[in-house]
Amino acid sequence: MKNCRSLPVGSVRLADPFLAHRVEADYRVTIPTSIDKCRETGRIDSFRLNWKPGMPNRPHIFWDSDFAKVIEGMCYAVALHPEDHRMAAELDGYIDLIVSAQQPDGYLNTYFTQVAPAERWKNIFDWHELYCAGHLIEAAVAHYEATGSRKFLDAMCRCADYIGTVFGPEADRMHGYPGHEELELALCKLADATGNDAYFRLAKYFVDERGKSPNFFQQEDPGRNEGQLKNRQAHKPVREQRDADGHSVRALYLYAGMADVAERSNDVELLDACKALFDSIAEKRMYITGGCGSTLIGEAFTVDYNLPNDTAYAESCASMALVQFAKRLLNITRQGRYADVMEQALYNGVLSGISLQGSEFFYANLLEVSSDTFTYGHIRKERQPWFDCSCCPTSFCRFLPQLGSFAWSEAENELRLNIPAAGSVNRNGIEIEVGGSYPFGGEIPVTVKSAGNFRFALRIPGWCRSFRLTLNGEAVSAAPENGYITLERNWNAGDKLELTLDMPVEVVRANPAVTADAGRIALMRGPLVYALESTDNGRVLSRLLIDTEAGFTTAPAPNLPDGVLAIRGEARLESDASEGHLYYRAAPQLEKAGFTAIPYALWQNRGPSDLLVWMRCR
Amino acid sequence: MKNCRSLPVGSVRLADPFLAHRVEADYRVTIPTSIDKCRETGRIDSFRLNWKPGMPNRPHIFWDSDFAKVIEGMCYAVALHPEDHRMAAELDGYIDLIVSAQQPDGYLNTYFTQVAPAERWKNIFDWHELYCAGHLIEAAVAHYEATGSRKFLDAMCRCADYIGTVFGPEADRMHGYPGHEELELALCKLADATGNDAYFRLAKYFVDERGKSPNFFQQEDPGRNEGQLKNRQAHKPVREQRDADGHSVRALYLYAGMADVAERSNDVELLDACKALFDSIAEKRMYITGGCGSTLIGEAFTVDYNLPNDTAYAESCASMALVQFAKRLLNITRQGRYADVMEQALYNGVLSGISLQGSEFFYANLLEVSSDTFTYGHIRKERQPWFDCSCCPTSFCRFLPQLGSFAWSEAENELRLNIPAAGSVNRNGIEIEVGGSYPFGGEIPVTVKSAGNFRFALRIPGWCRSFRLTLNGEAVSAAPENGYITLERNWNAGDKLELTLDMPVEVVRANPAVTADAGRIALMRGPLVYALESTDNGRVLSRLLIDTEAGFTTAPAPNLPDGVLAIRGEARLESDASEGHLYYRAAPQLEKAGFTAIPYALWQNRGPSDLLVWMRCR
Repeated sequence: MKNCRSLPVGSVRLADPFLAHRVEADYRVTIPTSIDKCRETGRIDSFRLNWKPGMPNRPHIFWDSDFAKVIEGMCYAVALHPEDHRMAAELDGYIDLIVSAQQPDGYLNTYFTQVAPAERWKNIFDWHELYCAGHLIEAAVAHYEATGSRKFLDAMCRCADYIGTVFGPEADRMHGYPGHEELELALCKLADATGNDAYFRLAKYFVDERGKSPNFFQQEDPGRNEGQLKNRQAHKPVREQRDADGHSVRALYLYAGMADVAERSNDVELLDACKALFDSIAEKRMYITGGCGSTLIGEAFTVDYNLPNDTAYAESCASMALVQFAKRLLNITRQGRYADVMEQALYNGVLSGISLQGSEFFYANLLEVSSDTFTYGHIRKERQPWFDCSCCPTSFCRFLPQLGSFAWSEAENELRLNIPAAGSVNRNGIEIEVGGSYPFGGEIPVTVKSAGNFRFALRIPGWCRSFRLTLNGEAVSAAPENGYITLERNWNAGDKLELTLDMPVEVVRANPAVTADAGRIALMRGPLVYALESTDNGRVLSRLLIDTEAGFTTAPAPNLPDGVLAIRGEARLESDASEGHLYYRAAPQLEKAGFTAIPYALWQNRGPSDLLVWMRCR
Repeated sequence: MKNCRSLPVGSVRLADPFLAHRVEADYRVTIPTSIDKCRETGRIDSFRLNWKPGMPNRPHIFWDSDFAKVIEGMCYAVALHPEDHRMAAELDGYIDLIVSAQQPDGYLNTYFTQVAPAERWKNIFDWHELYCAGHLIEAAVAHYEATGSRKFLDAMCRCADYIGTVFGPEADRMHGYPGHEELELALCKLADATGNDAYFRLAKYFVDERGKSPNFFQQEDPGRNEGQLKNRQAHKPVREQRDADGHSVRALYLYAGMADVAERSNDVELLDACKALFDSIAEKRMYITGGCGSTLIGEAFTVDYNLPNDTAYAESCASMALVQFAKRLLNITRQGRYADVMEQALYNGVLSGISLQGSEFFYANLLEVSSDTFTYGHIRKERQPWFDCSCCPTSFCRFLPQLGSFAWSEAENELRLNIPAAGSVNRNGIEIEVGGSYPFGGEIPVTVKSAGNFRFALRIPGWCRSFRLTLNGEAVSAAPENGYITLERNWNAGDKLELTLDMPVEVVRANPAVTADAGRIALMRGPLVYALESTDNGRVLSRLLIDTEAGFTTAPAPNLPDGVLAIRGEARLESDASEGHLYYRAAPQLEKAGFTAIPYALWQNRGPSDLLVWMRCR
């Protein structure tokens, strides 16, 4: 397939009011803090392989993946900050430590090596050996690309080679596949980085074997039922899957891996499955914020249109994985709709998962919170500094440095601006600078800084009803195709494009089948979903009826970073006629009120607050 | 305390259009079917004590309680049907079988006797030995009262005597209490039936010891955390508990037992705890249907005002237990508010749990169901004939014959009509007949059939805003006190009271803190909560906006038993403007429509249907 690629992390520098400081906070706060947490909790020492029964900090089956993700993030940070020799040196020490834990046969897993050596490969369904290997491979590829050093990459090649002697189609191998998918996409990355097609073939084997009959997971344990297989996307072959089912993070990592395999093998049938699964999510199973997973139970997708707000799961990791999946389909197909969902998740349900400071995290991203919201399990109403199962914080470590990379793609002699966030790109001699204040402002000046002949594609977002584009002051009449306007010419240094995306406040409704949102509206402006916080509106959110006819204004959002715009408008406040009773018969009264809504992604950054995305209206 | 008692089961014959045929269906269908199910599943054979490893139908820790509840129901049925010698003989055989399973020391539990003898009393927190004993004791008391035979009663006295050698304040006993409460109230019944105060003292010990520090359940297993203790109402002494917490059936059985102990020992402090716990439920944690328990997770109460409709748990057993708890507080205090809640649960969230035929059951009683409702675990959108954990069907077996007993209470020289359902009472020489069609009609003729001097108290329900009462055609001016009008006189045979309760359709709202019901209304008429079914209205329930200003009418409910009234009225139907999209920006249109609502308790009796209790309105 003739596809695009996202730009390398180091080639894009963001300077916009929404994403840029997230990249910076990751570098300054999230990565160092996560390293500290990994040290405190034993996740780093675990690689020394000297834990003994009775000692504190007993390693856990998923620990290696946490540290691997922080290391991957640090590799990207080093790529973005070549001046930071201290971080580079620190990183080098960690790489040596990780590699030192590798066993002579290539196996690398600190839990099974020192805690349960007899259990190696005994429970592929539940235990995370292949998952951890996948994250270590991703980190190794990031390290190689950031530093040119092969020591981590070579170690993970030995590990992948060893895994290829354990799993595969041959009669003497296990005909299994990851219980927590991720290794599939990692092996594709490893194949790209090394040019060794064996890694791709192993990824393809894992994808193709999954869910075939007789079922590997049921051979491993005949007690496993259909629901358990579905939670792991192993209830049927992946090419036959059309509904996004089961554990949402596992599902989305799998789908991303499927897209990688489809792309590299021109496998149209597999790509069609990916598209159908994407549609299942985007058209039936996704919160308006790009959140995925409607229930804590199994951390899973449920059924079409089941999108409860106050018991949403919408794990931060799942939205990040959705961005990765959408990015792959975008790069394969060049269809703007994949960019639309990528942006929707990125600007809402991903960034809501981390505080502006970069130090606290939501595991689950609720869309409605009040003092009376009951939260289940590890779901919290306020962000937390860490979790026992700390996948989300460590996912942010590696995700945030890639923000610029999502904004830009490239193909042969072509650059594609997927998200018009201000910043600069420098790639293969082409330099472009983007200005403006997107996503708060729709005026986007783009300056080509270097002369050359190349195609330049600008995305016109799916949410945008009207726009204007000029080149050096003259209107460009080209209509968007598949969501992009493509200009091919001999560019002169200093050529100036001016893209203006009209960005009114939009009243959005949900399909009537989404009973949780019946009679409710959401407010969007550009890619941003807005929400009511009690911080601005008092603890009356479910009694506020937004006046959709009275018009809306924007204004600087109180006590949020410079440049952040709030939406203001008129409303009616319903009186509390209950007199304290649980059920009552008086009719409430309506009085005039105003409201202030802020971007959902920024909620809970001004202290504890109630939250409401789907608002009542008049 | 100078209290009332509910009338014995055999002394009331119902003839109303709502309850009477439920008693009959229980006798003709529910009890015989449950006996069959107990036989098929091995619950009866388990009492033969010849199960061996490898045989089918391995007994389960709660099986004895299931069969005990069916037997208890059969005892009541025999009391109501003295002509049915065949059922009496069948019952006698089961009693012999049950008693034959008793061990020489008095222990009676078929699971631990034959499956896990070494585990007796090893896990009081999780296993159900004391719970099963309680249900067997209740059955034994019912058997003694229905037949006069002491054989089952004496056996259970020996069992209770034995339990009293295992648990108690003495140094050599276990200082524990039931992990699933129920035995407390059963022991009070046993004390009443036998006159042996030792059983009451053991009940009181269980109540008083519960939740004391050091905590027995944590001594049994130090790994148990606060949440687990709270699920079992053992996180603090019961006298200090003010919020209804944890597993809702366990909680309500405990509270009923606490009320029994408080009553029998004039324990005002304990009664105050009962009242506070009742208020916690009725004013903050109860569905409008009388449903209790907001979550499947732990089958538990959650927090104040957390009452989700489409993920309600509201277990049938919990509402039946609420009726038992409310009945006790009503009989102790003579306060009408306890009768109000008893009636609210009985006429809505209890009877919704069983089909009109008496053959199918809801475990959980949802308040909102659509094709897009996701149901968790064993929660179903349609009633089921049985469950692996079949507490609810077997609870109905014993609950339904008591319906008449809930309607009437007595005290010295006093009869009290708690629920004016048509029927007749014959008690200690006093005969009274109640006519009318309550709860569908508010005109209630009451005829005293036998002369005598006694107090007669008629409840004026809390939901009633206006009423009239005449005696032999002349207005009675007495005002209700605590929800009852009390008339004391020399009654002549043929004296006629005519009570008229005005019964308009009422629009009810929920406290604004119940965010699940924000902007919604419920419709009630008399004690009945009404609901929309797609059977009458099409699959558009969340798009129907009830017009609360246009007035309502009543009419015979289509395809439901004679006498059942539906509510009809005007509405607006919101168009589906989504064009199939998950999120969209068009504004829906409203068109005129009508609606039909039927009693919630009768939903899902005309085939599969969507359901909505809390309706949108204009």
